[in-house]
Amino acid sequence: MEYPSKLIEEAVNEVSKLPGIGKKTALRLVLHLVKENENRTLALTESLNKLRANIKFCKTCFNISDEEECAICRSHRRDKSILCVVEESNDVMAIENTSQYTGIYHVLGGVISPINGIGPSELKIEQLLSRISQKQNEIKEVILALSPTMEGDTTAFYINRKLKDLNVKVTSIARGVSIGGNLEYTDEITLGRSITARVLFD
Amino acid sequence: MEYPSKLIEEAVNEVSKLPGIGKKTALRLVLHLVKENENRTLALTESLNKLRANIKFCKTCFNISDEEECAICRSHRRDKSILCVVEESNDVMAIENTSQYTGIYHVLGGVISPINGIGPSELKIEQLLSRISQKQNEIKEVILALSPTMEGDTTAFYINRKLKDLNVKVTSIARGVSIGGNLEYTDEITLGRSITARVLFD
Repeated sequence: MEYPSKLIEEAVNEVSKLPGIGKKTALRLVLHLVKENENRTLALTESLNKLRANIKFCKTCFNISDEEECAICRSHRRDKSILCVVEESNDVMAIENTSQYTGIYHVLGGVISPINGIGPSELKIEQLLSRISQKQNEIKEVILALSPTMEGDTTAFYINRKLKDLNVKVTSIARGVSIGGNLEYTDEITLGRSITARVLFD
Repeated sequence: MEYPSKLIEEAVNEVSKLPGIGKKTALRLVLHLVKENENRTLALTESLNKLRANIKFCKTCFNISDEEECAICRSHRRDKSILCVVEESNDVMAIENTSQYTGIYHVLGGVISPINGIGPSELKIEQLLSRISQKQNEIKEVILALSPTMEGDTTAFYINRKLKDLNVKVTSIARGVSIGGNLEYTDEITLGRSITARVLFD
């Protein structure tokens, strides 16, 4: 596409590097900023720069945090005997939104993915193991809440094996048909597994 | 939604003010920036700030431009006898991409929309009229290429009436069924009008 201005072209190039944003959407966003007051653009860019410069990660669970240690790790109301292992900070947010979990977390920062060059050492797995072995009497259960994908399963398998020697119960979040979903439209793999892994009716 | 950090919350609020971007998408974009190198965020915000601070509008046609006058207005290859009136700069880009038009443009900066408080004086209509009256011997035809919506039609109607006294031919872009589209799936208003406004088979 021909742009009427070099400045527009550069901005579109930068914005379209964001995930899920193509050149057309980027152009729409950029033209929107041009039409609006300059203060809007300044507020946007300042908030992003401030975020990127000051963001911290909790020294215990590696979740995004404003402090050295995140609010969940610092809280006295959380059950410190259950630790939930997730890929990213947004998984913590998603689980917190359910209000069904009162334990603590550990954010890996991704999953093992040889194709993308991510091995166990790129993730916070070593830190997870030393955290559990240090608090072996406190942490009773580790929940693996990873994506139900090939990479997620590989990572869960790897962590489970590493946890064998430590005296903790390892569990995984339940997989099966979505609540409110239609059996007819559930993919066959999920449906098949939900029959094999059926549970007692309560 | 509960955010793990005030910085994240502020960034999400700013990003989600962009058109078509909700809180969830904003969070995804913001977390992406946090995960990437800080230079990426700096490159993005710098390009947006630079754009907003230095963007110019052509003094003749009000299209976005790097110079005082845009490349199209300055070009000697363009047919200065046909002037195409559009809403925004991206309409110029869309028409330029067709390679079917060699005339010049005039960007209104929007359409008349009483609901949004946009009257004729908020747009570059006065400038369009004085431009045409100044070049009355040069500009022979004015093409109204506005959106086929209520607001676009109102604006076209208004401009057409204002152009009555000036000695120019006023045309409108053709409306009808989309090329490659299926008659069955064309909305009834478009299909109905395309029958009423049928043209000689060539």
